[in-house]
Amino acid sequence: MVILGIDPGLAIVGWGVLDYQNTRFRPLAYGSINTPAGMETANRLARIHHDLAAIIDHYKPTEMAVEELFFTKNITTGIRVAEARGVILMTGQEKGLNLAEYTPMQVKQAVVGYGGADKRQVISMVTRLLNLPEPPKPDDTADALAIAICHAHSGCSRLGNYYNKMQ
Amino acid sequence: MVILGIDPGLAIVGWGVLDYQNTRFRPLAYGSINTPAGMETANRLARIHHDLAAIIDHYKPTEMAVEELFFTKNITTGIRVAEARGVILMTGQEKGLNLAEYTPMQVKQAVVGYGGADKRQVISMVTRLLNLPEPPKPDDTADALAIAICHAHSGCSRLGNYYNKMQ
Repeated sequence: MVILGIDPGLAIVGWGVLDYQNTRFRPLAYGSINTPAGMETANRLARIHHDLAAIIDHYKPTEMAVEELFFTKNITTGIRVAEARGVILMTGQEKGLNLAEYTPMQVKQAVVGYGGADKRQVISMVTRLLNLPEPPKPDDTADALAIAICHAHSGCSRLGNYYNKMQ
Repeated sequence: MVILGIDPGLAIVGWGVLDYQNTRFRPLAYGSINTPAGMETANRLARIHHDLAAIIDHYKPTEMAVEELFFTKNITTGIRVAEARGVILMTGQEKGLNLAEYTPMQVKQAVVGYGGADKRQVISMVTRLLNLPEPPKPDDTADALAIAICHAHSGCSRLGNYYNKMQ
């Protein structure tokens, strides 16, 4: 199963493609789609659509897992992230992928073993689990890989348990 | 100038196409894109993309005016509207339209003459201004036409003044 994990955003869309077979992960590719702050919003959204479609066409995932949005502080930023997220979900749908959404807490639970884990713990676990030579940059890319890992263990809670046993 | 006005939403996207020549409006077509509540969000977003692209291909507007989002009460609904709005902006961008965004207050100012106008006043003025046989349904469609009217008078405030003189 080839999984595309996505950490949505307007300025930075983190993405990571994992092959998952027999409880083993193989990272195929990962990176970020960046759009410049000076570019018009609609133009940035079109760039995200174009680049994401190209990633899907190239790596041919069958699943796409996307982080859910929670607005806490900045509503204006939240609106822009949601607009990008709409484009991302639509792109996955049009490419015929199976879509799943996970909350940040579910992802942390799945990857680190508890939902209150901090960003550094998530990045560290992603790096170890995928045997990466160094932590993925930017953080959005590491988050995207974490979301893909979460999806691999469908529903996340099983991976949380799995890790708790390992530790 | 052919203008496509859009009132964004996930369940209902209001749209209206106006031809504007020599300070006269001619409504070419108007309606709404409706997506069922039971359908997955990504599927609804793909439907909006598809139908909006078809409307643009058919009526060939050169301008697209979209209402800006303000979150007041329901954040969850607001996220969904923003996701749809992202798809709408991206679609207009990919079709090469000139894009503009207006706040609800700017639209009311432009169509009724003051920013505190209520929904009924907006619908009534849209119906009179466009010589429509009856008020457009649903309200989202009337709002979309109001946004197109607002855009025709670029910047909205001039139409507000215009109406103030008429009354």
